[in-house]
Amino acid sequence: MQASLQQELARIVGKDRVLASPEDLLCYSYDGTFVAYKPDVVVKPASTEQVARVLELACREGIPVHPRGAGTGLSGGSVPRGGGIALVMTAMNTIYEINPEDMLAVAGPGVITAELHRAVEERGLFYPPDPGSAEFCTLGGNVAECAGGPRALKYGVTRDYILGLEVVLADGRVVHPGGRTVKNVTGYDLCRLFTGSEGTLGVITKITLRLIPKPQAVKTILAAFKDLVQTGEAVNAILSAGIIPRTLEIMDSVSIAIVEQFSPCGLPREAAAVLLIETDGDREQAQREAERVVKVLKEVGSAEIRLAADAREAGELWRARRAVSPAITRIKPTKIAEDATVPRSQVPAMIRRLGQIREKYQIDLVIFGHAGDGNLHPNIACDCRDAGEMQRVEKAIAEIFQAALELGGTLSGEHGIGLLKAPFLMAELGEAGYQAMRDIKRSLDPKNILNPHKIFSG
Amino acid sequence: MQASLQQELARIVGKDRVLASPEDLLCYSYDGTFVAYKPDVVVKPASTEQVARVLELACREGIPVHPRGAGTGLSGGSVPRGGGIALVMTAMNTIYEINPEDMLAVAGPGVITAELHRAVEERGLFYPPDPGSAEFCTLGGNVAECAGGPRALKYGVTRDYILGLEVVLADGRVVHPGGRTVKNVTGYDLCRLFTGSEGTLGVITKITLRLIPKPQAVKTILAAFKDLVQTGEAVNAILSAGIIPRTLEIMDSVSIAIVEQFSPCGLPREAAAVLLIETDGDREQAQREAERVVKVLKEVGSAEIRLAADAREAGELWRARRAVSPAITRIKPTKIAEDATVPRSQVPAMIRRLGQIREKYQIDLVIFGHAGDGNLHPNIACDCRDAGEMQRVEKAIAEIFQAALELGGTLSGEHGIGLLKAPFLMAELGEAGYQAMRDIKRSLDPKNILNPHKIFSG
Ligand SMILES: Cc1cc2nc3c(=O)[nH]c(=O)nc-3n(C[C@H](O)[C@H](O)[C@H](O)COP(=O)(O)OP(=O)(O)OC[C@H]3O[C@@H](n4cnc5c(N)ncnc54)[C@H](O)[C@@H]3O)c2cc1C
Ligand SMILES: Cc1cc2nc3c(=O)[nH]c(=O)nc-3n(C[C@H](O)[C@H](O)[C@H](O)COP(=O)(O)OP(=O)(O)OC[C@H]3O[C@@H](n4cnc5c(N)ncnc54)[C@H](O)[C@@H]3O)c2cc1C
Repeated sequence: MQASLQQELARIVGKDRVLASPEDLLCYSYDGTFVAYKPDVVVKPASTEQVARVLELACREGIPVHPRGAGTGLSGGSVPRGGGIALVMTAMNTIYEINPEDMLAVAGPGVITAELHRAVEERGLFYPPDPGSAEFCTLGGNVAECAGGPRALKYGVTRDYILGLEVVLADGRVVHPGGRTVKNVTGYDLCRLFTGSEGTLGVITKITLRLIPKPQAVKTILAAFKDLVQTGEAVNAILSAGIIPRTLEIMDSVSIAIVEQFSPCGLPREAAAVLLIETDGDREQAQREAERVVKVLKEVGSAEIRLAADAREAGELWRARRAVSPAITRIKPTKIAEDATVPRSQVPAMIRRLGQIREKYQIDLVIFGHAGDGNLHPNIACDCRDAGEMQRVEKAIAEIFQAALELGGTLSGEHGIGLLKAPFLMAELGEAGYQAMRDIKRSLDPKNILNPHKIFSG
Repeated sequence: MQASLQQELARIVGKDRVLASPEDLLCYSYDGTFVAYKPDVVVKPASTEQVARVLELACREGIPVHPRGAGTGLSGGSVPRGGGIALVMTAMNTIYEINPEDMLAVAGPGVITAELHRAVEERGLFYPPDPGSAEFCTLGGNVAECAGGPRALKYGVTRDYILGLEVVLADGRVVHPGGRTVKNVTGYDLCRLFTGSEGTLGVITKITLRLIPKPQAVKTILAAFKDLVQTGEAVNAILSAGIIPRTLEIMDSVSIAIVEQFSPCGLPREAAAVLLIETDGDREQAQREAERVVKVLKEVGSAEIRLAADAREAGELWRARRAVSPAITRIKPTKIAEDATVPRSQVPAMIRRLGQIREKYQIDLVIFGHAGDGNLHPNIACDCRDAGEMQRVEKAIAEIFQAALELGGTLSGEHGIGLLKAPFLMAELGEAGYQAMRDIKRSLDPKNILNPHKIFSG
């Protein structure tokens, strides 16, 4: 990048907010995946005005801009392929308002998700979306990816909590879709168009979030099953009984084995799968629904049922679920987390297909995730320095996507397309659907400044 | 319209599906508002393929196409201003699938909303969106308007129940955004972009809807208040107590008076306002929440509280709410239903502003609607043949919109922009927001075939 451009950037955001040392460029070259490309320069704006002027400049000069939150993304969405500016939004991390009367919060895109959780829960309010990365990831990244998490089953995903946004468009103009009301149908739903647009249509600079009352009580249950058919039956039986648990997580036998190997939690080692289930509401409701879940689990024939008596015991049960991801990284250095999603009824079929893929390509495939909404997380432990293995992994991933689509599912339930899934997009959308999205991209970012190479391949 | 074009249309859909008699043109010239423009021809397609070929033809020839469901819209959205084709979707009224396992339904756009309600409730499932017009309006119209209804407070609006769509684009290409999974972040959220796009971006030909378990029980409460401040306090106190009722409807003193005048329901005539509140869930939850609501209402000092003992008594309470709209038409022949929406905390302020507007312009203004989400329905009874009155009404409406925007609200909570609110859109969105929407419209419908004049004025 020309020195003059770098100076112009420094004039906009201040010199200490423009980084270009080799170390800095390296730091902002990767995300939660294994792909990495270095930016030419790192810019950390402190205000909407600064973002607008950076984009104006980038648009004028044709410089690619890669918006970035905490870089925890799992599809390569913030990785600066093609160089240009890594636009790091973490400095815009003010919680401007928590309004119990209108049940909303207004926050900068750099606010850490878990910080917002704590801030609103102190006021008796609740912001449901809870990606596993909540302690690190940013609200801006959550909006850009439409992040989910275990609680999405009952409470929905990030999209369902966006009341209004402030967004800087590719040419520096600022728009304010939505507002402060829960109902709003004035013009097109740009709030939801920007949500999940992965930084390709605009840079999110302010977020107005809908909150709900904090559930008073949570009950946690762990249940083990002798086979996958029975596990699938249990999921359906619970939901068919009219109960929508707050979470309904699955761990397959491999997950159980590696957790018990690397950080033993006392999981039933002989089980084909376990479900981790939470009910919530006021004290009576959480308790009564938990009892109904236990009853259903017994009817289905669950081999073992543990109902946590208190928060400590619940914490123990969750420790097992949380131990899966770290345990995978103990198998091999590279961890690839997919999130192909199928209709709920197809979860057992998908798990079977994943098992076949594991055998066929001889890969370390671990299955866990959000069984209640069909959003499984097949994870592959591998070593990205092992070319032979990576070839098999690549073929396995293509087959995972194919299986999801064949079962009526989708490439991505919550991690986005980014760089890594872009080559597969056409297979899901078809020519016309793909073109419609490209047309929208072109209409809002005609010079293809924002996150080029993302979502659309090529 | 040239006879040759009409013949080509007849070749596509069949002769009996093309109507052009003066009576037919008149029948499809209006909607639920007082505006009317005649189409050149009425076409009633029976399949996606037919819709695609009609649009292909229209695009080639530059003929405007106005998609239409039941014509119950309240913003002039389906009125064929500029002539062309009225594309009536009511014949595509098949419920293709109700799937309890995946908790979804697949339906044609012509299915009447209440028919879907009944069909899924028979299977123990629930489709929450419940516009007051449910017995007449179509699912296609609901999606195009992102319809709401009383139950939106707890359960959200149409947007929140769209899993997948089939949409024919302006040039006849068919796209399939979304699918059958509750989580899906593959590419842009076109499901939500088409939802609420008022037939300006594509014609909806198939809808996959998310369902939830049917709540077992509902409890209904009516409460009267001595003034509006107290009414607003009651709304906030209920929600702050952590209860989200299924519905939280308000009727002002004028609503009460006209209901009691034209179809007496025994409402407390001296009240400044009444709230109609429903709780639901399993039997215990509905009952317990109702008791908590009653307790809160007492604390706030409600003048009178009626808790319906059974379904019959609940029906009586709802009869009053349902009587408001018909009563308005008894005052004067023209009924204008607005839906300007404000943040919940601003409901009392908005009601005050509406009162001032009523005085200032000497109009018959009735206020009722969805207090829980700030979505009021200021209705004006007038006579569209009285030019003097209509001038005052027009000014009053402009001032209602201004008040909503000043209070941090929006032009439309659920009825859409259509023809009638198009002139006010820029005031809410600003230049950049307006242009962004126009750019999207242009990208998907470059020849401006679909519902020209709607949403965007001019
Ligand atoms: C251990 C772990 C667990 C996870 N669990 C979950 C989970 O349960 N559910 C889930 O959904 N995800 C999960 N993720 C994925 C990831 O955390 C989410 O996608 C998160 O939303 C990314 O936020 P971020 O701030 O790290 O964004 P980044 O990774 O920095 O960026 C993600 C995308 O958002 C764009 N972006 C970032 N900020 C902005 C902005 N202000 N304006 C415009 N675009 C922007 C970027 O360009 C990029 O395309 C997990 C990740 C890890 C590592
Ligand atoms: C008494 C009464 C009560 C009402 N109560 C409510 C309420 O509580 N909540 C609420 O939200 N609304 C309410 N409405 C408004 C209205 O019923 C809704 O907007 C409804 O969704 C319109 O459906 P429709 O089939 O009549 O559509 P129409 O009026 O025919 O069309 C509405 C819009 O949708 C477009 N459209 C229709 N079908 C399609 C399609 N298949 N593809 C693309 N575009 C299409 C049209 O072009 C038009 O822009 C009420 C109306 C009345 C008369």
